[in-house]
Amino acid sequence: MKIYGDSISGNCLKVKWVADLLGRRYEWVETSVLQSESRTPAFLAMNPAGQVPAVILDDGRPLAQSNAIILHLAEGSALIPADAYDRARMLEWMFWEQYSHEPYVAVARFQVRFLGKPVADLEPRLVERGTAALQRLEDGLAQSPFLVGASVSLADVALVAYTREAGDGGFDLARYPNVQAWIGRVERALKIAT
Amino acid sequence: MKIYGDSISGNCLKVKWVADLLGRRYEWVETSVLQSESRTPAFLAMNPAGQVPAVILDDGRPLAQSNAIILHLAEGSALIPADAYDRARMLEWMFWEQYSHEPYVAVARFQVRFLGKPVADLEPRLVERGTAALQRLEDGLAQSPFLVGASVSLADVALVAYTREAGDGGFDLARYPNVQAWIGRVERALKIAT
Repeated sequence: MKIYGDSISGNCLKVKWVADLLGRRYEWVETSVLQSESRTPAFLAMNPAGQVPAVILDDGRPLAQSNAIILHLAEGSALIPADAYDRARMLEWMFWEQYSHEPYVAVARFQVRFLGKPVADLEPRLVERGTAALQRLEDGLAQSPFLVGASVSLADVALVAYTREAGDGGFDLARYPNVQAWIGRVERALKIAT
Repeated sequence: MKIYGDSISGNCLKVKWVADLLGRRYEWVETSVLQSESRTPAFLAMNPAGQVPAVILDDGRPLAQSNAIILHLAEGSALIPADAYDRARMLEWMFWEQYSHEPYVAVARFQVRFLGKPVADLEPRLVERGTAALQRLEDGLAQSPFLVGASVSLADVALVAYTREAGDGGFDLARYPNVQAWIGRVERALKIAT
């Protein structure tokens, strides 16, 4: 398998973490978004959406979208709950991540850390919605160690990727103690170097 | 099952179409977004994200996020491809829909049709990205009748919901002949009244 990814992208790291945890062999092809390497003709032929991560599977077929890739790689593993309802809740978190968390928490971090924008100049909408997303996570983790029950799942992989970097976008993680403790639990469960 | 949905929302109609096609019995609880009925304390207790659709399953447990709900309802049906790679491509389209299509195509339509904004006053970013999303669909449908192979899947359900309404947001569907033909095929396959 080849993983086309940018090491500064949480979406790309999701794929790396799952592949590493499952012991999948792969070649990492560093693909810089800032240098538009995901917009070259060769890249667009593989993923017309022009986004990283994208993978070429062992049989040569392409696949894109971080959450679709990790769902495919992790099929049959303990990262996907066996129970149908738990699986549905995992998917609920994963779709919510892409719609209501990543566009705010990840975008704020990108603008501050990689484009040099001062936190005070962030669009108010990014800050408000990012804050709401973090509060929703805080509430969701009040009763349970992981997002779906007692063990780590792809919901945690998807949500931890940018949540652990939220401080870089000006969000104060100290205001979310459940989230802070969960980040540590997920990093240990996924064996992510910190 | 109870489906809390707003009849003007494509995300909510996805759930209705799948439930109808699979012959699932349900009660539809009309929930107006414009009247903030998805932000009442009772609603938020069921879905803290404050979004429709949300369902209460037959066993009383809640589930939210349109694409997670239809994946749950359709488990084991022909709407989900049996082949693992086809299933992954279906998920790729579904995540892409929520990240790169709905926030532009659906939001433009909402602003024009339900908030009365003139098309000429739409944010350029909405128009550009919505146009790019429609072109990506057009290209993706050049070789195949449905988004994933020869028969209708949840990828088509997820994408057709707002694509068929794109004209209301000022997009000219006549520029996308593959998309136009596909909308008709999907509507017939899903038995959607037009």
